[in-house]
Amino acid sequence: MERFQKWFDDHRQEVLENFFTFLKFPSISTDQAYQGDVRRCAEWLIEFLGARGLETELWETSGHPTVFAQALRGGADAPTILFYLHYDVQPVVPLEEWKSDPFEPEVREGKVYARGAIDNKGQCFYTLTAVQALLELMDDLPFNIKLCIEGEEEIGSSGLAGILEEKKEALAADHLIVVDFDMAGEDRPSVTLGLRGIATLNIECRNANADLHSGSFGGILVNPARALTEALAKCWDASGRVTIPGFYDEVKDFSEEELKPFEWGLDVKSGAKPFDAHAFQGEGKFSLQESNWIRPTLEVNGMESGYTGDGVKTIIPSKAMVKLSCRLVPNQDPDRTIKLVAEFIKKNLPDGLVVKTEMGHGARGLILPAESKVAKIASKAYEDVFGKPCIKILGGISIPIVISLMKACGGDAALIGVGLPEDGMHSPNESFSLKRFEQGFLSIARIIAPENGYE
Amino acid sequence: MERFQKWFDDHRQEVLENFFTFLKFPSISTDQAYQGDVRRCAEWLIEFLGARGLETELWETSGHPTVFAQALRGGADAPTILFYLHYDVQPVVPLEEWKSDPFEPEVREGKVYARGAIDNKGQCFYTLTAVQALLELMDDLPFNIKLCIEGEEEIGSSGLAGILEEKKEALAADHLIVVDFDMAGEDRPSVTLGLRGIATLNIECRNANADLHSGSFGGILVNPARALTEALAKCWDASGRVTIPGFYDEVKDFSEEELKPFEWGLDVKSGAKPFDAHAFQGEGKFSLQESNWIRPTLEVNGMESGYTGDGVKTIIPSKAMVKLSCRLVPNQDPDRTIKLVAEFIKKNLPDGLVVKTEMGHGARGLILPAESKVAKIASKAYEDVFGKPCIKILGGISIPIVISLMKACGGDAALIGVGLPEDGMHSPNESFSLKRFEQGFLSIARIIAPENGYE
Repeated sequence: MERFQKWFDDHRQEVLENFFTFLKFPSISTDQAYQGDVRRCAEWLIEFLGARGLETELWETSGHPTVFAQALRGGADAPTILFYLHYDVQPVVPLEEWKSDPFEPEVREGKVYARGAIDNKGQCFYTLTAVQALLELMDDLPFNIKLCIEGEEEIGSSGLAGILEEKKEALAADHLIVVDFDMAGEDRPSVTLGLRGIATLNIECRNANADLHSGSFGGILVNPARALTEALAKCWDASGRVTIPGFYDEVKDFSEEELKPFEWGLDVKSGAKPFDAHAFQGEGKFSLQESNWIRPTLEVNGMESGYTGDGVKTIIPSKAMVKLSCRLVPNQDPDRTIKLVAEFIKKNLPDGLVVKTEMGHGARGLILPAESKVAKIASKAYEDVFGKPCIKILGGISIPIVISLMKACGGDAALIGVGLPEDGMHSPNESFSLKRFEQGFLSIARIIAPENGYE
Repeated sequence: MERFQKWFDDHRQEVLENFFTFLKFPSISTDQAYQGDVRRCAEWLIEFLGARGLETELWETSGHPTVFAQALRGGADAPTILFYLHYDVQPVVPLEEWKSDPFEPEVREGKVYARGAIDNKGQCFYTLTAVQALLELMDDLPFNIKLCIEGEEEIGSSGLAGILEEKKEALAADHLIVVDFDMAGEDRPSVTLGLRGIATLNIECRNANADLHSGSFGGILVNPARALTEALAKCWDASGRVTIPGFYDEVKDFSEEELKPFEWGLDVKSGAKPFDAHAFQGEGKFSLQESNWIRPTLEVNGMESGYTGDGVKTIIPSKAMVKLSCRLVPNQDPDRTIKLVAEFIKKNLPDGLVVKTEMGHGARGLILPAESKVAKIASKAYEDVFGKPCIKILGGISIPIVISLMKACGGDAALIGVGLPEDGMHSPNESFSLKRFEQGFLSIARIIAPENGYE
């Protein structure tokens, strides 16, 4: 594998320059204002990959486009590896908390700071770089490589989901590798074999059609902020359990046998330490790790009502709104679950309020077979690069498209990556250490090395 | 009184032009960004009043300045009437709900639309205009007139409060008239003899120092939005009563005798009808009118946490904040009450969260004697102008400075005005009908007519 290390050493500056160019696109998928930037980022990828010898296609979807690229050097009968990556990023608010411009990558103490530095442009780009190196270093390959790089991972992948059936043949593969994950810890490589599902809900409730004077109307009007607060607070008990009837009905009860392959007893609090968090709570009797890996959550992602500026404004707000999301586990149905939440909150709001609900993207939770070929190859690659045993873990995050993509491609799957909680995915000052970028590159290089003998 | 009507008819255009100039100053006292505009508005008043023959003084305070003006035509032994008014206004957010620029007065169907149209620039300006007319129409007056027009009414009057002792002599008066009030209804003139007190509180609670991924950390971290929601919801019971221990301890229990002078059985819901409100709740067993007039409230004025933009952002917010205020009644102590609220909420927040509290301006509630000289003269004036009996009412709003001002000036007091809930004080599209502006002018003219024989 020394040739990959040498290739990287020889190309380091060019690789980083291109990586930083990739980071500069404000490809924020959730905000319509950035629609053009998202597309420009996709087009840049098409050009980048085309120039490196891959066949490329820009797939239009109902939303942002998907970048597809392939190198079919193995021929029709050879095994095919499909990488799933994404080029869209989270919003950057609150902007004032960033120490440097989120779209002007800045290197400080060996880390690059930018929105997308790790999630997923960083992990995406070392993967593309490893593929580039492989294609440059070897003319003959015993397998085919495909890349599916989508632009709506952060908003539920509905565009890609809508074309999966149509693109089934293009996506056909024996092994699906999703490179969008953390390691279990610093120098603690891991392969992730579980994803939680997701379902989202926005609720707004209104009384008067304007903010009204809290003296003139105080004691007369129902305050929507108070009403929503009270309805929301009924959703959990003091132990952190969701109290909404039926919420846990479908949740799979795992046997000891089923949980055995995975590494338990990890210090999951440690990921929150770099962020100065001191208040922890899981669900009822479950450990924090169980609560994060195999139990569902209901979280407030955002909330707003009335006057939030400087000083005092003594009003009864016209309306109040909350953004909620659930992380789901096998075998919860996203639609059923989020409807239960919406109905429960609506039922607990006072009569007379005008209530609007908006249910967002849904995906089921997933636990993958621990003994697949691709999981084994990935584990071995990490052990080689990090010189440490690679453990099998589950995870708390959601990548809604993975289940559908597994069905569409027809192969086994592994979820990998070299992220760490300290990288601050979705947070201000997101970063990625350049050392781990290189380790990521080397890991992918080992995974796709011809000697691994994919079948 | 025909001469006042004639004067107004002759000067109508000039009066409205000056009124609109007054409205154009964005004298938003709570927002430091408008500090210069607030001062320019005060300076304009000084010039305006000086040019009309009043002696003027700009009183510097710890905050925005107070405009003081007087016409001492009655001499040292004559009775003195002091008007209290204010030239500062509320913020204009949410700006997108305004149909016209809040600081570009626009007349539509006989009403002027602008921030401050009624509260208090409209009521202030017809009062100044009546004083102007009086001074122009009569050389000899059997009394003295003083005007105290402050710039911090909307933020608790702490600047003026701080100089009252020093300005005691200048402010000395026999009668205090506060022109900042609503009538009991359309063509239902009233004199207000009660004010609620106020106390405000901002609370922020933080866990991590950044918004974190709700998948990676969901099931591990305490969510500050959920925590604050749960603590807040504990502040009220389902009947609308505040559950904070001790909150009602000091609340005065009024006897039937004490409540008899005031008009009960008003339809207080009707004020909310123009704003399409359909959800009403008072405090427990009390009627809505009692809840508004003689019972305290705890209201959420604003609330914010996490992501509130378009689409979805699946984070656990770093922090959550709420802006609260209490309306207080006799004999509640503002400091004691708001501390009870702050302590209760803090006690109900989970350990490990970093909690910041900020307690704002406080004032006690007040009920004035129903049979004072000034209340009688104001009643009579309204009956003359509106041709309807003038009733005595209490009110839900707060003007913190009134009690201190009564002490400083040493006189009796009445709270008057021709506002209506439909005017939308503190709301977008605040307005004031030009017909009521004229009725306001005529009412003040009658109140200060020499034949009233102030003592």
